[in-house]
Amino acid sequence: MKKKSTPVRGTRDILPLEMELRDYLQNKVLDIYRTHGFERIETPALENLDLLLNSDGGENVKMLFTILKRGNKLRLQEDSSIKDICDIGLRYDLTLPLSRFYTNNKETLQYPFKSIQIDNVYRAERPQKGRFRSFKQCDIDIIGEENESAEIELIDTTTKALTEIGLKEFVVRINDRRILSSIIIAAGFKEEHISSVSITLDKLDKIGEDGVVIELISKDYEKEKVDRLIDNINSVNEENLSSVVNNDKIVQEMLNVINSIRILSNGAYKIEFDPTLVRGMGYYTGQIFEISYGPYGFSIAGGGRYDNMIENISNKQIPAVGFSIGFERIITILKEEGRQYITNKHKIALLYNKEDNITEVIKKADEFRENNYSVTLIYAKKKLSKQIDNLKENNYDYFLVFGKNEDVKEIK
Amino acid sequence: MKKKSTPVRGTRDILPLEMELRDYLQNKVLDIYRTHGFERIETPALENLDLLLNSDGGENVKMLFTILKRGNKLRLQEDSSIKDICDIGLRYDLTLPLSRFYTNNKETLQYPFKSIQIDNVYRAERPQKGRFRSFKQCDIDIIGEENESAEIELIDTTTKALTEIGLKEFVVRINDRRILSSIIIAAGFKEEHISSVSITLDKLDKIGEDGVVIELISKDYEKEKVDRLIDNINSVNEENLSSVVNNDKIVQEMLNVINSIRILSNGAYKIEFDPTLVRGMGYYTGQIFEISYGPYGFSIAGGGRYDNMIENISNKQIPAVGFSIGFERIITILKEEGRQYITNKHKIALLYNKEDNITEVIKKADEFRENNYSVTLIYAKKKLSKQIDNLKENNYDYFLVFGKNEDVKEIK
Repeated sequence: MKKKSTPVRGTRDILPLEMELRDYLQNKVLDIYRTHGFERIETPALENLDLLLNSDGGENVKMLFTILKRGNKLRLQEDSSIKDICDIGLRYDLTLPLSRFYTNNKETLQYPFKSIQIDNVYRAERPQKGRFRSFKQCDIDIIGEENESAEIELIDTTTKALTEIGLKEFVVRINDRRILSSIIIAAGFKEEHISSVSITLDKLDKIGEDGVVIELISKDYEKEKVDRLIDNINSVNEENLSSVVNNDKIVQEMLNVINSIRILSNGAYKIEFDPTLVRGMGYYTGQIFEISYGPYGFSIAGGGRYDNMIENISNKQIPAVGFSIGFERIITILKEEGRQYITNKHKIALLYNKEDNITEVIKKADEFRENNYSVTLIYAKKKLSKQIDNLKENNYDYFLVFGKNEDVKEIK
Repeated sequence: MKKKSTPVRGTRDILPLEMELRDYLQNKVLDIYRTHGFERIETPALENLDLLLNSDGGENVKMLFTILKRGNKLRLQEDSSIKDICDIGLRYDLTLPLSRFYTNNKETLQYPFKSIQIDNVYRAERPQKGRFRSFKQCDIDIIGEENESAEIELIDTTTKALTEIGLKEFVVRINDRRILSSIIIAAGFKEEHISSVSITLDKLDKIGEDGVVIELISKDYEKEKVDRLIDNINSVNEENLSSVVNNDKIVQEMLNVINSIRILSNGAYKIEFDPTLVRGMGYYTGQIFEISYGPYGFSIAGGGRYDNMIENISNKQIPAVGFSIGFERIITILKEEGRQYITNKHKIALLYNKEDNITEVIKKADEFRENNYSVTLIYAKKKLSKQIDNLKENNYDYFLVFGKNEDVKEIK
């Protein structure tokens, strides 16, 4: 009986051509990261369910894939909770596993620890176009550095990686959760409303200023406060930051990061203070940043400082900042820009016949392989011209026929 | 409250130094595979539970990690079966996903299709030393080629990859399921006992010839047949194969593979016909092979022909052969042989002070990075000599102090 051969709903198979592009991207980024003193680690895709359920992951915690207990640990009852019958879950991001990893291995790691993680994460989202239930994240983090030199290093390294893969004219947008709070408080809101107001502000991109005003008023905030908030947001900028933020250190950190990155960018990309930047994750405590790629108008990287997360696991306050490149989005961009054919090797089809001596055929192929060509052995078909057309479709650059005329011919 | 920070039982965190070695191994192998015309693909770690449960995976199917249904698809009852409450499982190998992938994507793939897969698989084994519940497999397969040229290509490519990473004097052991069956039948066993006898024969390495005899007799086979089987196995060899195997094609295929690989090996490794080679997986239909690495006495690669597996999914008989490198075992070997420090970059620690201009510090680092050094920025400590000792422990090759004496000094 024919079985279902499609992948699990919301996941996908990756074909050879895209896989070459993915390997290219990963290796380029990894090389830049390592050159900048970051070290790659790997954690298992499986994490204890307790850790995942008690994390600060917001919506992601509601989208967990959970794994059934095995053997006699499993006792099913009609009213069993997920925690009763599952013991493991799949990670929904790489930041929580990093916090656990750091706590588990800190004795053997450098301090501060500069990590690289490039791995798949899993979210049981409602499947929709361009969103997958299994996708790759690509993070660098600095653990153990409270100074904003960490932010500068992360932004510098990430922008260099994006530049290296050929992305240009992107914009780094930067804010600080503490500045955002100050702005909200200065408009007259109470401390306990900061989170609710931020959630609405985060929708500015999607629903516009009018939409934000309507939503805040529908949340029963006074129109006067809401208007003042919008005014404050529209008027605050790098120059007048200290008039809104009553804390010199926070302002100085922001200006230092902006000015340093502006120098390091050498005009190749922009950095802008953006008081409307919120970023969804609940765990950010200080500066937050995002990179927008103009032609596509969407975010291709994001991150920020999360000084309290590791404390949740290790019981010790350890500062941390991370920056994550949107691996899947960049793949989309590279494909749309027609760069799916970036390969490091030229491909040769070596056509031969069943009657040929296979060791001689392989030795012939090896001559080209030594010169870094990729050579595929393929049985020659009767209709050579049709076979060549087929090779062309499969991105072969050259072919030769074993034993006959061994000149390598270009496939045009 | 301090939470548990260890990884899920049976899994592990991978630290930076091992990760460098893993990336090195993966890239070397991947490069050889691609040079030989194989194409990398990726399938999701998640597969539909139906596919996994109805597969020919033997013991592995009993070790599935299964994922709970979500939302209102989940209806728990005391007597629910795993199939009632779970819809997805984690893959236990890469061959079953490849068969599904091939069926799902065959219209866009070359024929024959030569695939590379390097990915993690998951088995809920009882944790024990050296065995992990999440580990990496590294497979090449040729789908759509019935001729033994496929076996020759796979063995040639795999042995070249092993040679490239510096492994020497390994032995390729080769057998054929059909030859094994002929030998068992020739000893007087019935067709329906082949599988049971093979399972015992597979233990020869562990329990020796006497152990095999005892186990077969305890399975109620007559001593006469058992003795004849052992005799046949001990006497059969490349030269007299046709006296045992009543099928010229099977013998010719075996001799062609052995002779071709012997020529291609150029004496760098051995290939031996081994009538005791069984390999556990139920799905093999023709030649099977394994590579033993002398100094460690264990298998570092294994594979074989599985001409019926894809038919289970696609309803169409499509020949296939695969060869898998034991990624984790090779990592163990490389570590034991003291090769954990293979890195492609020299590491420099650039020590600086909080008062230094960070953009200048980064620019200084970039000068070295352009020459392919990995440069880490680190705040200088008061006790420089202690800090240098620490850098040495962390495998730094050089250090320099920003702004003072900018000569690069070697760390010895």
